[in-house]
Amino acid sequence: MLMDSDPEAGSIGSTDTATLLKQAGTRRAFLRSSAMTLVAAGVATACKSDATKTAARADTAQLPVQSTATSLASPVSQIPAEHGGTMPTPAAGAVGVTRPETMDEMHERGVKAFPAQTAGKGNQLMTPRIEKGVKIYEITARKIQWETEPGKLVEAWAYNDQVPGPQIRVREGDRVRLVVKNELAESTCVHFHGVEVPNDQDGVPFITQPPIKPGETYTYEFTAPNPGSHMYHSHHNAATQVGLGLLGAFIIEPKVKRAIERADIDYVMIVNDGMHGYTLNGKGFPATEPIIARVGQTVRVRFMNEGMMIHPMHLHGMHMTVIDKDGWAQPAPWKCDTLNVAPGERWDVIVKCDKPGVWAFHCHILPHAESQHGMFGMVTALIVKKAGEA
Amino acid sequence: MLMDSDPEAGSIGSTDTATLLKQAGTRRAFLRSSAMTLVAAGVATACKSDATKTAARADTAQLPVQSTATSLASPVSQIPAEHGGTMPTPAAGAVGVTRPETMDEMHERGVKAFPAQTAGKGNQLMTPRIEKGVKIYEITARKIQWETEPGKLVEAWAYNDQVPGPQIRVREGDRVRLVVKNELAESTCVHFHGVEVPNDQDGVPFITQPPIKPGETYTYEFTAPNPGSHMYHSHHNAATQVGLGLLGAFIIEPKVKRAIERADIDYVMIVNDGMHGYTLNGKGFPATEPIIARVGQTVRVRFMNEGMMIHPMHLHGMHMTVIDKDGWAQPAPWKCDTLNVAPGERWDVIVKCDKPGVWAFHCHILPHAESQHGMFGMVTALIVKKAGEA
Amino acid sequence: MLMDSDPEAGSIGSTDTATLLKQAGTRRAFLRSSAMTLVAAGVATACKSDATKTAARADTAQLPVQSTATSLASPVSQIPAEHGGTMPTPAAGAVGVTRPETMDEMHERGVKAFPAQTAGKGNQLMTPRIEKGVKIYEITARKIQWETEPGKLVEAWAYNDQVPGPQIRVREGDRVRLVVKNELAESTCVHFHGVEVPNDQDGVPFITQPPIKPGETYTYEFTAPNPGSHMYHSHHNAATQVGLGLLGAFIIEPKVKRAIERADIDYVMIVNDGMHGYTLNGKGFPATEPIIARVGQTVRVRFMNEGMMIHPMHLHGMHMTVIDKDGWAQPAPWKCDTLNVAPGERWDVIVKCDKPGVWAFHCHILPHAESQHGMFGMVTALIVKKAGEA
Repeated sequence: MLMDSDPEAGSIGSTDTATLLKQAGTRRAFLRSSAMTLVAAGVATACKSDATKTAARADTAQLPVQSTATSLASPVSQIPAEHGGTMPTPAAGAVGVTRPETMDEMHERGVKAFPAQTAGKGNQLMTPRIEKGVKIYEITARKIQWETEPGKLVEAWAYNDQVPGPQIRVREGDRVRLVVKNELAESTCVHFHGVEVPNDQDGVPFITQPPIKPGETYTYEFTAPNPGSHMYHSHHNAATQVGLGLLGAFIIEPKVKRAIERADIDYVMIVNDGMHGYTLNGKGFPATEPIIARVGQTVRVRFMNEGMMIHPMHLHGMHMTVIDKDGWAQPAPWKCDTLNVAPGERWDVIVKCDKPGVWAFHCHILPHAESQHGMFGMVTALIVKKAGEA
Repeated sequence: MLMDSDPEAGSIGSTDTATLLKQAGTRRAFLRSSAMTLVAAGVATACKSDATKTAARADTAQLPVQSTATSLASPVSQIPAEHGGTMPTPAAGAVGVTRPETMDEMHERGVKAFPAQTAGKGNQLMTPRIEKGVKIYEITARKIQWETEPGKLVEAWAYNDQVPGPQIRVREGDRVRLVVKNELAESTCVHFHGVEVPNDQDGVPFITQPPIKPGETYTYEFTAPNPGSHMYHSHHNAATQVGLGLLGAFIIEPKVKRAIERADIDYVMIVNDGMHGYTLNGKGFPATEPIIARVGQTVRVRFMNEGMMIHPMHLHGMHMTVIDKDGWAQPAPWKCDTLNVAPGERWDVIVKCDKPGVWAFHCHILPHAESQHGMFGMVTALIVKKAGEA
Repeated sequence: MLMDSDPEAGSIGSTDTATLLKQAGTRRAFLRSSAMTLVAAGVATACKSDATKTAARADTAQLPVQSTATSLASPVSQIPAEHGGTMPTPAAGAVGVTRPETMDEMHERGVKAFPAQTAGKGNQLMTPRIEKGVKIYEITARKIQWETEPGKLVEAWAYNDQVPGPQIRVREGDRVRLVVKNELAESTCVHFHGVEVPNDQDGVPFITQPPIKPGETYTYEFTAPNPGSHMYHSHHNAATQVGLGLLGAFIIEPKVKRAIERADIDYVMIVNDGMHGYTLNGKGFPATEPIIARVGQTVRVRFMNEGMMIHPMHLHGMHMTVIDKDGWAQPAPWKCDTLNVAPGERWDVIVKCDKPGVWAFHCHILPHAESQHGMFGMVTALIVKKAGEA
């Protein structure tokens, strides 16, 4: 099935992906299917994620943290996929206290769990209500619990209970209304990052509007201008609010698509490194979502960075053809396999899926993707199925 | 008035900007004009800047730091614009101890203060003395106190008492002489970053020259070669000396301008993250300088990074057309709204100001731009006035 | 002599460089040749490198570290080039406890020592064994001691006792076999980064193959596909294993070279910031290797980043023309003097050496290149000799 990214049709790749996940699981026949009996103390250690440590202040050591001792006492069943891992410090790396079999088992366990089920799915395509030709999106910001990996619950501030918030896709020239209700305990605001709205719709408190106070509802309305991969996110106390999840994709489809941007699968990948650890679309490996395509198909990936760090995203096995930056066509497409995505940037690439297999797809800052406990964080896969493959 | 960047004429945008600042202040009519009565303890907290913490060593906790307890006791009048803010750690973000009204008032106070007056202005266009056709720039390096935000004084090592040092603009083919006097307590040296000078003028101690010792004067002389946006800065103990302020813009205007680089306003924006916190042209928000243009005008921004971190600079409302990298024309101009500027890089962009309003312009690594106390650091605005607007 | 990068001929620039190093030493006639008598306590301080601190966890202070007190007691002769330097914190920078003469002497000592001799040389071109038309590379991964600077020994996990591992250069279409023996105490795996191999040769444990356990040997084989500057490195426990040295260049020469990529000298520069500190090809300044060319020659530099941080590499005096990204030709070459190289990226540039002299070539994140003790880490030089110069 050719999936075009027509926002009216709603046949976005991610929708189709869901039905293919189970099938994909059967591909990894080479994996040992025997039950794992990991009882070594090292395995049972629940680790704080790198991101937490990175963001932590120098005086972190004085803050109460999750006790390792407690985790050691936990039954294994309560920590089925704690792949946060410790920062591979020189000391840890050199000492190598973990037995190699134990380490391999931890790594295998992570891979076998992928794609792991978690509660909640972010970045879901949102269907607007249409009144008198205006596409109306009702967005509520509120505090929730969010599962980034199986069993790992974090506090999130979310739009419509999703992290990232619902994916908004409109067409160039559409009249768009965003009705934002603030159910947080502090004021907020919505900025349309990259969207060239009139100044009074720009969403910067005390510059273009008053903040939206707790309990208040505020309405934005504009005609969708410059097409491309954009974002919407809080612009009030933003380091905290965006870091906790008030962000989402805002895509404006062009009236006429260029030939080069037509793709069978249109996939949004929001990279983040805020309070929820290293995530892709709000989840850390093995709870990340694979992209599933067939040989011969093309995948468009819309990278968006809502974090505080730059992430060079690396695809195995096939190259990416970069077509757009921040929604603007590059003068000429260019190829790479590792694409540096900085906070606030959006990069659109096309991958021609000409080689079957499960291809790792991850941030190449290795401590964002793998620890001694296995892969975690910013890792997913592009799964390319053969023509006749189930 | 059309301001061309002709170095002979001296009509650089920043000069004109000064006269428009006051007028711009009147635009923000939507701001509440009532006096603020912030007495909550949270407001009175004087915070160390993020940058200080980032640069701090692991053993920072053992160093004497400004006591929060002391600050709490300080009268509000002594901390009129302490917007340095604390790093939005997970703990701080999640806990949210600040009352929403208090937070909003702090945010508003910062915006209302913009552009705040501080002592000293860096990056001022320097007029050379001309002798026998040679443009002579006399530069003295010495230690000063520098006000980065209202009331925030830091130690700076400065050229001619400015941070950044005076802006040097010459024309391709000009004979240029730089007479550098070292009034610091340690040796120094000047490197012309990006300028293709002969090797003996390259300014690297013990490789191309001896260091300039305290009390000594050293003379550089060369014919201005490759045009473009370049820099001059210390190349001796440089992590410290540049971090403390020994840096400036060195611009070589081409003999013949390309059509695309002609702009009504020519603005240099030096981003930094050294010992002075996150700054634009040596100041942190709200003491940063807005860029002021009229609808229909074009602004050329020359981004230069003299810091230790990469800063993705984001402009609201309008896109930037990237024309030059390190002073060299890109093969074809390309558009973006978020431009990644790495240490040592210079990027020239053109903004066509087609939309009136006050447009936020900031680093999109959010902890460099906003805290729970409001915007700070690497934030300014592009103010686009309507045709008839005062 | 024109050195072409023909892998069959083996006349890679680095080979020739070795013979020129001694000659280059005589160029720095301006340096004082008097013996240095540095006895000040400050000089005798052996410093931990920045990289160690950067990678260190917040609780580093609790780990046993090399005692400064011990170092102070060491005779000077045991620490001839400890240029690791302390992070120039605000406190350190502002206080300036070092006497200027002492600081200058330390800086001079580092420059005079360049290029310093150390045991071991990484990135050496490897000659394959050829059987039935297959180029066979036998690679053994094992733990060694590695000298990054004179007297600074670190634990390394290395391919064939080199950091970076031996440079593999094949030609597009070659049949290539890599026989990997694991003599480490934990499992490993080899991924061919950027090389579009079939999925079962991609080197990701539990996805494309089982891990290579301690004592095991594993064979990869494929036909060299997409030409360009690629890499090979561990993809198992990779943050640790790559950080400790399991990495190398994997270059595929095209069947037909483009005119623009022909160069007299073909130089691979692998930048790193792992457990070994800030290094270029496994060494920190002054033990880094200069690139030596003659006026009129062209140098191709193949930047590869195997670290965890982005490094903007800056060349003095002459610009770089960027031709390839990740082995793929850019749509049009473009010029710069500071090139941002992110983890996993490869960038190929051409430098036309039209200006004689010793040109500094370093990362422009200054704390990666210079401390109060002088230059260290990611610093080398491009030495351009005049036509008749010895």
